Amino acid sequence: MTSISELGEFGLIDRLTADLPRHNDETVAGVGDDCAVIAPNDGGEMLTLVTSDMLMEGIHFDLVYTPLKHLGYKAAVVNFSDVYAMNGQPRQLLVNIAVGQRIAVEHLDELYAGIRLACERYGVDLVGGDTSSSVTGLALSLTCIGQVRKSEIAYRSGAKKGDLVCVSGNLGAAYMGLQLLEREKLVFDGKQNDETAAQPDFSGREYLLERCLKPEARRDIVEKLREAGIQPTAMIDISDGLSSEMLHLCKKSQCGCRIYEERLPLDYQTAAAAEEFNMNVSTCALNGGEDYELLFTVPLTDHEKVSQMDDIRVIGYITEADLGTCLITRGETEEIPLRAQGFEHS
Amino acid sequence: MTSISELGEFGLIDRLTADLPRHNDETVAGVGDDCAVIAPNDGGEMLTLVTSDMLMEGIHFDLVYTPLKHLGYKAAVVNFSDVYAMNGQPRQLLVNIAVGQRIAVEHLDELYAGIRLACERYGVDLVGGDTSSSVTGLALSLTCIGQVRKSEIAYRSGAKKGDLVCVSGNLGAAYMGLQLLEREKLVFDGKQNDETAAQPDFSGREYLLERCLKPEARRDIVEKLREAGIQPTAMIDISDGLSSEMLHLCKKSQCGCRIYEERLPLDYQTAAAAEEFNMNVSTCALNGGEDYELLFTVPLTDHEKVSQMDDIRVIGYITEADLGTCLITRGETEEIPLRAQGFEHS
Repeated sequence: MTSISELGEFGLIDRLTADLPRHNDETVAGVGDDCAVIAPNDGGEMLTLVTSDMLMEGIHFDLVYTPLKHLGYKAAVVNFSDVYAMNGQPRQLLVNIAVGQRIAVEHLDELYAGIRLACERYGVDLVGGDTSSSVTGLALSLTCIGQVRKSEIAYRSGAKKGDLVCVSGNLGAAYMGLQLLEREKLVFDGKQNDETAAQPDFSGREYLLERCLKPEARRDIVEKLREAGIQPTAMIDISDGLSSEMLHLCKKSQCGCRIYEERLPLDYQTAAAAEEFNMNVSTCALNGGEDYELLFTVPLTDHEKVSQMDDIRVIGYITEADLGTCLITRGETEEIPLRAQGFEHS
Repeated sequence: MTSISELGEFGLIDRLTADLPRHNDETVAGVGDDCAVIAPNDGGEMLTLVTSDMLMEGIHFDLVYTPLKHLGYKAAVVNFSDVYAMNGQPRQLLVNIAVGQRIAVEHLDELYAGIRLACERYGVDLVGGDTSSSVTGLALSLTCIGQVRKSEIAYRSGAKKGDLVCVSGNLGAAYMGLQLLEREKLVFDGKQNDETAAQPDFSGREYLLERCLKPEARRDIVEKLREAGIQPTAMIDISDGLSSEMLHLCKKSQCGCRIYEERLPLDYQTAAAAEEFNMNVSTCALNGGEDYELLFTVPLTDHEKVSQMDDIRVIGYITEADLGTCLITRGETEEIPLRAQGFEHS
């Protein structure tokens, strides 16, 4: 028997979904992007996008420090983010939920209040789902349906040599928020006697906690790009960390990249918290995960347009595949291969 | 705090989904049918159907007697069944799965072999999903996308006074199969010392086990109805038992019904097993669940057509709402209100 950890998540998905047959002409794209893509069978212009994510208690969230309303909001938003990552618009949401004995109706009211708020803010209709029991913890599985014009869809696979690599917002903040919460949990559990940590004070750290507990999907970026007449050649949302997503994008696009460490967008609070935790802030930005920012490529000819846009940073460029996927360290002193899990800074 | 059991599954869903706003014109129907229904925004003829179901270890399945390949097959088929229940065709499937430590890669190969087989048989494309960890048991959440013509869609809400109530196949077999498996599990666990049960012998019972472990969705019935030119006025699939589904259909259609006990379709093996377990076979047929047969209504004018079709039985008719939802017992001796959970036979 082979343990799942031997293969890893992506190796496992590759194995389970190898050589899938295609029975229907409407199935445009399946496994391997942020959403599955379905065409209308009458040749219409709008494609249907579908994405589904599972959130398990004890793996993806910890109810000790996650308010249920925030959990509901986040569960919805991370699905919307996958639709925006295809340059689409989320439209409908289905919510499957399995609950253990500890959960009361009022808890579910809270969870649904968060889901409803996210739907309201993003203009999405809650259209169904399934409610059942669980012998243990809370399990959520949300499915989002979206739409995108054929001419506007952005796959992971469209990046070309010379394209600029762009990222929205800033990176690593959600990860630092999680570190703060985990530290407080240890204090709360009495497992740590660190004097400073024993005085929980999140003031000045609200931004990091919000990025962790109540992230937003970057609808605004998708809208701004459209308004500016910019069609991303490839796009993906950052759920597992910039390095991991950049590797996905390059693999699908059969290209390489050069990413500049000094171009990584960082918030001041992220840098301050990283210092406090004695962590390398670039590592947090590259591998932190749960940022739900958009990582995308645009043709070099859009350089001027994209440089003028707020909250978008050009962090590197696309190369031929045989040049590899590299990070150029500060001061251009070194080229380090991007890796999905951490990197050793010199 | 209110416990979920106080409200029940359907009460809980009603509460959580009360007064949902509608943001998008394409959202035709949401919570309250077998699938959500989405219209193309260009006025095209094909509607998109979406349904999603969660299956939790220890609640919906028991790995002691459920082969993983069968579990995968069943998990897919029950989703397809929801699409057929709207008179549609399933087209794409997304599979979310969360696995605990006990599960090896080879186990997932088995599970996926079942899912792939179901997709092959029903012409559905596996297009995505999510794979993650679970701190405890196995959790599955499958989402199926289907298509149906606007002119052919069957909601739960379309039944009219005088319509005939029809059911496909036979009822109660899956439930009796489950009883057999549960009895063998008790023997296996050494919790029961029943002499006869201690000699497990499923010969002659294969049909019941198959109905329980490896059900099929009634694509054939949907196709036959179309070929015969019959448009069901309302339809639902039988997952929770005939009584429960009949009540849903009548509630949505704002009507009542008369169902004849002597018309309930039963397989010989179901009747024999019910006798062995000292159960009332009509109760099994009415409340057993997991049959995945189709329950539908047709106009009285289709009586001749529908009567001539194999594997479809007319079991009663639709009345005005104020006449209630009743079962007429054998020999027409009594009128008993249909109830979602069990009924006391005189």
